[in-house]
Amino acid sequence: MRVKIVIPNSSIKFRDSQVEERRKAASPGNEVEVVCLSHGPVSIESAYDEALAAPYIIEEVKKAEKEGYDAVSLDCAMDTVVRACREAVTIPVTSAGEASYLLALGLCRKFSVVTVLKSTADEIRENINKYGFGSRVASVRFANIPVLDLKDEEKAFKAILAEAKIAIENDGTEGIVLGCTGMSSLAKKLQQKLGVPVVDPAVASLRLAEIYVSMGLKTSTIAYEAPSEKEML
Amino acid sequence: MRVKIVIPNSSIKFRDSQVEERRKAASPGNEVEVVCLSHGPVSIESAYDEALAAPYIIEEVKKAEKEGYDAVSLDCAMDTVVRACREAVTIPVTSAGEASYLLALGLCRKFSVVTVLKSTADEIRENINKYGFGSRVASVRFANIPVLDLKDEEKAFKAILAEAKIAIENDGTEGIVLGCTGMSSLAKKLQQKLGVPVVDPAVASLRLAEIYVSMGLKTSTIAYEAPSEKEML
Amino acid sequence: MRVKIVIPNSSIKFRDSQVEERRKAASPGNEVEVVCLSHGPVSIESAYDEALAAPYIIEEVKKAEKEGYDAVSLDCAMDTVVRACREAVTIPVTSAGEASYLLALGLCRKFSVVTVLKSTADEIRENINKYGFGSRVASVRFANIPVLDLKDEEKAFKAILAEAKIAIENDGTEGIVLGCTGMSSLAKKLQQKLGVPVVDPAVASLRLAEIYVSMGLKTSTIAYEAPSEKEML
Amino acid sequence: MRVKIVIPNSSIKFRDSQVEERRKAASPGNEVEVVCLSHGPVSIESAYDEALAAPYIIEEVKKAEKEGYDAVSLDCAMDTVVRACREAVTIPVTSAGEASYLLALGLCRKFSVVTVLKSTADEIRENINKYGFGSRVASVRFANIPVLDLKDEEKAFKAILAEAKIAIENDGTEGIVLGCTGMSSLAKKLQQKLGVPVVDPAVASLRLAEIYVSMGLKTSTIAYEAPSEKEML
Amino acid sequence: MRVKIVIPNSSIKFRDSQVEERRKAASPGNEVEVVCLSHGPVSIESAYDEALAAPYIIEEVKKAEKEGYDAVSLDCAMDTVVRACREAVTIPVTSAGEASYLLALGLCRKFSVVTVLKSTADEIRENINKYGFGSRVASVRFANIPVLDLKDEEKAFKAILAEAKIAIENDGTEGIVLGCTGMSSLAKKLQQKLGVPVVDPAVASLRLAEIYVSMGLKTSTIAYEAPSEKEML
Amino acid sequence: MRVKIVIPNSSIKFRDSQVEERRKAASPGNEVEVVCLSHGPVSIESAYDEALAAPYIIEEVKKAEKEGYDAVSLDCAMDTVVRACREAVTIPVTSAGEASYLLALGLCRKFSVVTVLKSTADEIRENINKYGFGSRVASVRFANIPVLDLKDEEKAFKAILAEAKIAIENDGTEGIVLGCTGMSSLAKKLQQKLGVPVVDPAVASLRLAEIYVSMGLKTSTIAYEAPSEKEML
Repeated sequence: MRVKIVIPNSSIKFRDSQVEERRKAASPGNEVEVVCLSHGPVSIESAYDEALAAPYIIEEVKKAEKEGYDAVSLDCAMDTVVRACREAVTIPVTSAGEASYLLALGLCRKFSVVTVLKSTADEIRENINKYGFGSRVASVRFANIPVLDLKDEEKAFKAILAEAKIAIENDGTEGIVLGCTGMSSLAKKLQQKLGVPVVDPAVASLRLAEIYVSMGLKTSTIAYEAPSEKEML
Repeated sequence: MRVKIVIPNSSIKFRDSQVEERRKAASPGNEVEVVCLSHGPVSIESAYDEALAAPYIIEEVKKAEKEGYDAVSLDCAMDTVVRACREAVTIPVTSAGEASYLLALGLCRKFSVVTVLKSTADEIRENINKYGFGSRVASVRFANIPVLDLKDEEKAFKAILAEAKIAIENDGTEGIVLGCTGMSSLAKKLQQKLGVPVVDPAVASLRLAEIYVSMGLKTSTIAYEAPSEKEML
Repeated sequence: MRVKIVIPNSSIKFRDSQVEERRKAASPGNEVEVVCLSHGPVSIESAYDEALAAPYIIEEVKKAEKEGYDAVSLDCAMDTVVRACREAVTIPVTSAGEASYLLALGLCRKFSVVTVLKSTADEIRENINKYGFGSRVASVRFANIPVLDLKDEEKAFKAILAEAKIAIENDGTEGIVLGCTGMSSLAKKLQQKLGVPVVDPAVASLRLAEIYVSMGLKTSTIAYEAPSEKEML
Repeated sequence: MRVKIVIPNSSIKFRDSQVEERRKAASPGNEVEVVCLSHGPVSIESAYDEALAAPYIIEEVKKAEKEGYDAVSLDCAMDTVVRACREAVTIPVTSAGEASYLLALGLCRKFSVVTVLKSTADEIRENINKYGFGSRVASVRFANIPVLDLKDEEKAFKAILAEAKIAIENDGTEGIVLGCTGMSSLAKKLQQKLGVPVVDPAVASLRLAEIYVSMGLKTSTIAYEAPSEKEML
Repeated sequence: MRVKIVIPNSSIKFRDSQVEERRKAASPGNEVEVVCLSHGPVSIESAYDEALAAPYIIEEVKKAEKEGYDAVSLDCAMDTVVRACREAVTIPVTSAGEASYLLALGLCRKFSVVTVLKSTADEIRENINKYGFGSRVASVRFANIPVLDLKDEEKAFKAILAEAKIAIENDGTEGIVLGCTGMSSLAKKLQQKLGVPVVDPAVASLRLAEIYVSMGLKTSTIAYEAPSEKEML
Repeated sequence: MRVKIVIPNSSIKFRDSQVEERRKAASPGNEVEVVCLSHGPVSIESAYDEALAAPYIIEEVKKAEKEGYDAVSLDCAMDTVVRACREAVTIPVTSAGEASYLLALGLCRKFSVVTVLKSTADEIRENINKYGFGSRVASVRFANIPVLDLKDEEKAFKAILAEAKIAIENDGTEGIVLGCTGMSSLAKKLQQKLGVPVVDPAVASLRLAEIYVSMGLKTSTIAYEAPSEKEML
């Protein structure tokens, strides 16, 4: 099985910092490749960033299908243009935000998301409403750290831990979803400290892609019709 | 007052077919200009098309603000990347889908949308859920006519009328919103035939933009924060 | 175009204090008239007050249609018997609460209402639920000032400002709707101070009425059927 | 215990046709009195009728409290101005629509209402949404018979039966609520024929009032504050 | 009329402490009997306890029907396997949680439940969502006292009172439902102290059962089909 | 990794018919064992059956933890007492209904469940509401075949296919979840015929259990507290 992980930003440094994590996370027999975009913003932190990255994400996802990958995992908790990607290809496309919510729902009644910024929190809240999971989400909080500053792991850990604790004490949450795949490496340590399940969105998306492939499940073509061919300027 | 109407596709023919309609629809004292995109698909009929058009929409909206327009009206019932546009500029940005739902809500308890294709119907349904208006929408139907084929007005009229009648008889609707700005010219004739209010989404968006300007109302910057400056590849 | 503004209370003093504001707010070419009721309570602050005023509101709205007005704007944020008014006449009837919510929805994802009293806050909350907008409302707060005491503008300003700030800081709101048309004159000053859009409900209702007239849109007669003739004791 | 039954229309004939039914339905020890309004429409079939009857309903309810009744049962499935009545007095006020929904909810997962006209069906649907019971209601149907024509019991029985059967077969309902207290006398016969519970709204309201009195439960004064004294013209 | 009250735990002491209360609460002419289970846990405080008690509850309910009782009142605010009980017999089965919510809904717009433990609060919240009443519930709070410790009435009273006050002041509630039938004897005293309606769940369930019997209403057999006969190991 | 599959009925024949399927479905390195109950009904087709099986399910799940299994997969689409099981043990407990809904949500916007009987359809619908996924479910249909009759695979295939086709054509569904683990062997063939994703609930649950174990994720102990020790009769 071959799953391609598409990080929907153009930062090669960020990609390089994640490759090893993702390879370790892949199930035996899954040859993952991790790519970022050739063009677009170096991080996705707003609807604006998403709009600018959109065509390049589609490009990478279509390329993955042509290269014979069995599935694509979109490595971003904002689920950027995931619906358009599903229209673009017939292989399953999982996405870090959506996949991590699905896994969290089997572990607790209410979970909270802790993401990087207010702008990503707003987008994540809208996604959750769009998905119809609103009644299961206690809160969406943010650590106020831009994506590319997550590389200062100690600072990031402290800030995320603080928000997660507030979510547990004040918001009545029972589990945490990390709201940025750049937080992936901190998941286990946070779980140990917090004593509640902490879902790593990057791994969640990768595993869900693997399940779909192994079970022979593909995106519904009624739900996500192939777009009609048309002129492009 | 100057409102810029941005049609988020690249079809100059489509733009030319709409210019006169929009100028007539503008309130006295509003100097509208109608533009389409320099790049991107010739019509927007799927999430895929939206993704490909996204950066060029942002570009036009930002240009409008620099040119000193007081507001932008996005002339597409799919509300393509409207959230990103609101982040990109400080002038109000209205959008044909959203604006027409808002007007319909003051005229009836339940309305139906009649749009062009199943793929646009799916997107419109998701928008309506995201906006939280689901309980007021009787149905989203489609006439099965691609956007650029709407120029055969007689055929379009018949197909839209048929769907609107089903919406009234079977779905319990009380008003119709046209789900594509290319249907704009048919609104009055449909209303006469159907005996229920038929909202023209292009005019709805233009008028809402005019109201916001005249009342001194701007997009909330808490809701739609200006994106942070960052490197683009 | 002629829009009649019906203030659904019997206080001529209150009416007189609003006339100039409304005339200034009317679009060029709209000859507004502002009336209050001949009978009923001097202010509408509870469901009880609404019940006592109800037949006199209907009377004024029917009179407006007979006098040839193109639309009626109900000048009360509690949207008192607006459904009955729509049944009573065929011209559009807008209402200050509903209209201001519709305008706010295009400017932010979540708005808060700041009204006069707990009893009006309760009614407004019920209206919002009935309209199906509950998921877009961060909170309904009240300044604890009876309608007729709003004439002490400085005191009113301070109290409304305080509640609006709590709404922004604690409730996560992104825009403010004033929940009483007696607060109309304070909207711009509050907006300047708060830095978020502040919607004036009286002007919102008037403008929405103007749009409906100019677009040839009328209340759906399927939604609001004309009542059958019957004996009255 | 003394419960006053207020029929919120001005038809003495209708009242007279219901008195015996209500007296039989009262629990032992409950001295019921049944009154209709001194003024207002002869039947309540629209929001318009409700508005015209509103002050006279309040009047009767206040009178009941002064006369020392322990509770009031509003004998109308449209729950006309029930909120205002609860503000007006401190004794419990039950209402035929609301009470019958509450009883139905303990007997089945989904119920349907069968009422008289489209206009009452619309109002009932709005009430149900306002009460937050929408997810438990399979449908609101109407027999297309004006209230005062229900006295032709055979015709009424057939029409209601037909709609109830459609509700069971097509709408997936599991129980029926009669949506007009004028249908009261048909409840048992319909239940026998349909094989599902059929709730008589007039008796439901009366019994609920009796329970509240016997359990010492009164309307929450936080929920329904006493209106402030004010000038009336 | 004969209503059997089934306490779904195995504590004879608990049963004995409730018998007198229930007998006093029964309407004249209703010969109640109060039983507890022959097997199962001595109190029901978790889904785990409910699972262990489940078959014995069914057994008691079926026995009641065979003994000729007209209805069963399940005397537990967790509504343990009430759906299964309704399948098992044709006589009405009311339950303390559900019945008390139904009564509270006619007295206030928003109520809060105060129960014994976090685990029962979680279950009650799930029930409320399942019943579709979520929008009417301000909060579910717990006094942190195990069921069998409620016999220290003074301590229980203080702890419940404290939570109810927080519900009124912070959660915006307007009425209280006691979330354990072991709190039954405290209802009136709490109501006096709090000034809002306090619903006793045990009496609510008993009264609702009495209403159903007196009105000739039975559980819908479409909603709760009789289970098919099958082999048991 | 060792996952124990607990079939919550007492039919050894049914168990034997599923063992091979489950073993094939397990990922490499997962030593699954498949057990059924020692006591209880031979199939679970109603809330009544669930109540009778409840304590024996708990027993098996606790035994699995003592035997050192890493997770339990409850092999029943009705998710029988899954909450109680999660309280009873600290290892993850997945369940066929819930797990299959989670997987379906990543493949389509709306799915339908096709189950065996009306009584299981009712229970599944209630579970879906309880989980908060209602807005994503197009319909819950049933093939009208008791669980143990599914062994006539040809008949079962035809009946399920027919219902799934109605779901696609009439209910607007985009994917199918099989609503009984006894249908497991038909999933692939149905998917081929229908052209939409068909989720096998037994495999979905098993895979989800494997993911949780491999990611080090456990049930939230805040969500599902360990029950307090207490006396059992």
